Amino acid sequence: MRDWNMKGRDRQARLEAGRRLASGKVVAAQDLVAFLEAVLRPGDRVCLEGDNQKQADVLAKALAKVDPAKVHDLHMVQSGVVLPEHLDIFETGIARRLDFSYSGPQSARIARMMFGGRIELGAVHTYLELFARYFIDLTPQVALIAAVSADRAGNLYTGPNTEDTPTVVEATSFGKGLVIAQVGEIVDQVPRVDIPADQVHFVVNAQRPFYVEPLFTRDPAAITETQILTAMLAIKGLYAPYGVRRLNHGIGFNTAAIELLLPTYGERLGLKGKVCTHWALNPHPTLIPAIESGWVEQIHCFGSEVGMEDYMRARPDIFFTGPDGSLRSNRAFCQTAGLYACDMFIGSTLQIDLAGNSSTITGSRVAGFGGAPNMGSDARGRRHPSAPWLRAGQEADPTGAPALRRGRKLVIQIGETFGDGNAPMFVERLSALDLADKLDLDLAPVMVYGDDVTHIVTEEGVANLLLCRDKDEREQAIRGVAGYTEVGRARDRKMVERLRERKVIQRPEDLGIDPLDADRSLLVARSIKDLMIASGGLYRPPSRFRNW
Amino acid sequence: MRDWNMKGRDRQARLEAGRRLASGKVVAAQDLVAFLEAVLRPGDRVCLEGDNQKQADVLAKALAKVDPAKVHDLHMVQSGVVLPEHLDIFETGIARRLDFSYSGPQSARIARMMFGGRIELGAVHTYLELFARYFIDLTPQVALIAAVSADRAGNLYTGPNTEDTPTVVEATSFGKGLVIAQVGEIVDQVPRVDIPADQVHFVVNAQRPFYVEPLFTRDPAAITETQILTAMLAIKGLYAPYGVRRLNHGIGFNTAAIELLLPTYGERLGLKGKVCTHWALNPHPTLIPAIESGWVEQIHCFGSEVGMEDYMRARPDIFFTGPDGSLRSNRAFCQTAGLYACDMFIGSTLQIDLAGNSSTITGSRVAGFGGAPNMGSDARGRRHPSAPWLRAGQEADPTGAPALRRGRKLVIQIGETFGDGNAPMFVERLSALDLADKLDLDLAPVMVYGDDVTHIVTEEGVANLLLCRDKDEREQAIRGVAGYTEVGRARDRKMVERLRERKVIQRPEDLGIDPLDADRSLLVARSIKDLMIASGGLYRPPSRFRNW
Repeated sequence: MRDWNMKGRDRQARLEAGRRLASGKVVAAQDLVAFLEAVLRPGDRVCLEGDNQKQADVLAKALAKVDPAKVHDLHMVQSGVVLPEHLDIFETGIARRLDFSYSGPQSARIARMMFGGRIELGAVHTYLELFARYFIDLTPQVALIAAVSADRAGNLYTGPNTEDTPTVVEATSFGKGLVIAQVGEIVDQVPRVDIPADQVHFVVNAQRPFYVEPLFTRDPAAITETQILTAMLAIKGLYAPYGVRRLNHGIGFNTAAIELLLPTYGERLGLKGKVCTHWALNPHPTLIPAIESGWVEQIHCFGSEVGMEDYMRARPDIFFTGPDGSLRSNRAFCQTAGLYACDMFIGSTLQIDLAGNSSTITGSRVAGFGGAPNMGSDARGRRHPSAPWLRAGQEADPTGAPALRRGRKLVIQIGETFGDGNAPMFVERLSALDLADKLDLDLAPVMVYGDDVTHIVTEEGVANLLLCRDKDEREQAIRGVAGYTEVGRARDRKMVERLRERKVIQRPEDLGIDPLDADRSLLVARSIKDLMIASGGLYRPPSRFRNW
Repeated sequence: MRDWNMKGRDRQARLEAGRRLASGKVVAAQDLVAFLEAVLRPGDRVCLEGDNQKQADVLAKALAKVDPAKVHDLHMVQSGVVLPEHLDIFETGIARRLDFSYSGPQSARIARMMFGGRIELGAVHTYLELFARYFIDLTPQVALIAAVSADRAGNLYTGPNTEDTPTVVEATSFGKGLVIAQVGEIVDQVPRVDIPADQVHFVVNAQRPFYVEPLFTRDPAAITETQILTAMLAIKGLYAPYGVRRLNHGIGFNTAAIELLLPTYGERLGLKGKVCTHWALNPHPTLIPAIESGWVEQIHCFGSEVGMEDYMRARPDIFFTGPDGSLRSNRAFCQTAGLYACDMFIGSTLQIDLAGNSSTITGSRVAGFGGAPNMGSDARGRRHPSAPWLRAGQEADPTGAPALRRGRKLVIQIGETFGDGNAPMFVERLSALDLADKLDLDLAPVMVYGDDVTHIVTEEGVANLLLCRDKDEREQAIRGVAGYTEVGRARDRKMVERLRERKVIQRPEDLGIDPLDADRSLLVARSIKDLMIASGGLYRPPSRFRNW
């Protein structure tokens, strides 16, 4: 007779080992290293949360201190590789294999460790893809998660930063894994139940809040006039004609400029109520003025943003909030919304090649993807029509049978032809290809593929790739907005002019935009302080953004 | 000063109106109609659950009885339109607009009501797409949901049929809507908390279980030898060469035959452990023998299946189960898994056109989509490689730069050239197009688009559309497996022979399969009773499937 409860018995053994070092479900902080050594087994699949924003930092530090003779060769399956400890465990052999999504601040070190063979790479995923695998072939055996507080039974309150937690816990707990939560405090009653106690096995009282990075804050003071010009081009050349109401903005100064131009330039164009009403978005502080002036109907958030908590609590009609009054974010649902319910994704990138493939890899960095591949892809399972989606589909295939012609999601790359450190955004060959060679990867880490990109916006104009009828037109449309980069200078001038006549390329003047009008006075807020004032003092910027 | 809490105040007013007819959170069944009249407002967006399997039937019946002078013009946003009451409310004017996913048993009536103007159609969605819109532009103002039991605080136990409930509740409750649950009983303590009490506003004690339909049960006795042949072709011609481990099976006798052939034919081919190990799948009874003989490592389920509850409880290593021992299903996560973590979707259809577009529309029926558009689409946001996915990508684009070439999901349509009532599966023009004309739809209701389909399997052979290099080859590959249908007879015989030489088309003999071997003796179970015996008596088939 086969034993059909091996996983359950394995968890029971871990529970018993853990309980020897716990009081009920509660593990004391000083016992944490011994506790982890008691409940972890070599080779375990472990999710150390590890989000894009919030971090189970106390659990990460403790995991880095376990004895590698006892706990080794872990397979880490987590969305964010962000803290030094997330990589330290690979140096010491505690962990060996890695499947992840995003590694922003650790992108250089993670690459070095991969080159050096310290990390065995499974794959780099977009968030929703990694979550999907939690339910199929990467189900965690142990989840180390973070919450704001717990009650004595183990009910968890995640507060505004709910993020990945419900997804990780659901896969782990019902998959017969062990769920261990670090919390800032243990209380009699949690303000709301984000994770029910029966899904949580142990709680560690860290006695301080988990670490959160203000990843989505952009200071309006740093926005350039070139970025303002690209924002004007996007609003007048794309948002207006397509009538985009449901959208996601990637992070960056170009999209921040768009947000800050809605109540000025957007208002002047008569777009209020016609575009940008429904969002899948992190709570960008730069969207505050547009919210305050009535542009926005609803926002669903992937995560929270440091300093935005009170503002969101005071705007419950706009944000999804709980009975406690604070934001309920959810990365899995917001990514799903970005995939299937939004008509546009617009984001910046560091490199675009002649086919329109884009990547944020430059030099030897493995930065991961985050949500861009998911939101920057055409959702081919989508079946509901909308005006912008149908128009984009018609542009791509004007002769197709209408009832059999699908629409297209608008996927827009926006940036200056020369970016930070004067690096050209347009390249003949992506650096991602060199990285794939060096690491012997099956796939180069391409963020958004050219066949999903519909438009490219630079200060030189808007290229509409939907209107290109072949590979050559596409290449020239890209070269045609690539400015003085090498790629731009190598354009076929006659072909680019023909593309312009067909409105495949639109220059600022074609859209009635005078580049000299691209002035910082167009920004409805020109500093973090302006944003704070616009919020009526509800937005509380982190100290690093305060210079007054 | 703008009021930023209009939604919250609106909910508060409904809560107060509702509490007058409730005792705490509990509404008595006899007060239900008056209660709904008190908390609903004309024009409300309402999700009446309304899943693919389970139904909030008591709430549906009560909603159909409210006074249309008080409650009218509701906008229903629910995945399943299944019960008569789901449509009755449109006859009486209680509801007016509909956004949905699936309408199996009501497909003829729903079409008649659309023709007659009784229903204003928003759109037909795939499940995950509708869920996505719950967080963007179709957030329910009231959710009428179903659970097994509740405690007095309002914590809900959904049991094996968790399905859509957590997704609907999250969008509604945090979106400031009202959540009303029908439960079979009110208990002191729920066996596990599927929905925390603070997300639930009212509970109705229906004093009996909610209605569930055994939608995924197929009687092996009804499987034909032609279906067995298509199953052999799929296993030897596709599962084996691609090495498909992570997959989803649509419902139907063809896929049931595959499931029943794994322990016999599959075992003989040496495929055990090499294919079909990880599933996103409803608990198909026909998979029991494969599970019992050790083929399956793990299954994540969209919903439950009537009669499978005890079997799943006894197989916790295979299924996701909770601390109460019973299945935890979750349609949103399982659809996400089907999209991003599976390498294959295989399902049946009723019509395929010359471009490979397929539809289940025949005559005047609006059946909806269910999960097929989502799982039967190439997930372009996917970034993790796997052997089957890479191989499919290489076949589609053999000359592409390897590191820039994405893989492809295997999307397979399987069926007999002539289906029920001798209707040809292959058609020049989909009936879906006529329906789009009649209803003036922007999009014909196509289930899976031709550009996402990779293979078609019939008794005549396997067509590999990945290997087709143009539209003509694709058309002839489809005609080449279309048998004696008109589409099949109009094939270009020379071209079809050339495609066969290139293995674009593979006949049974090309794969070493003798159609005479396609015998019912290959089925590891030949009746529902055999399935029950294979489960050791744990599977308890519903009475309609018992004929002994």
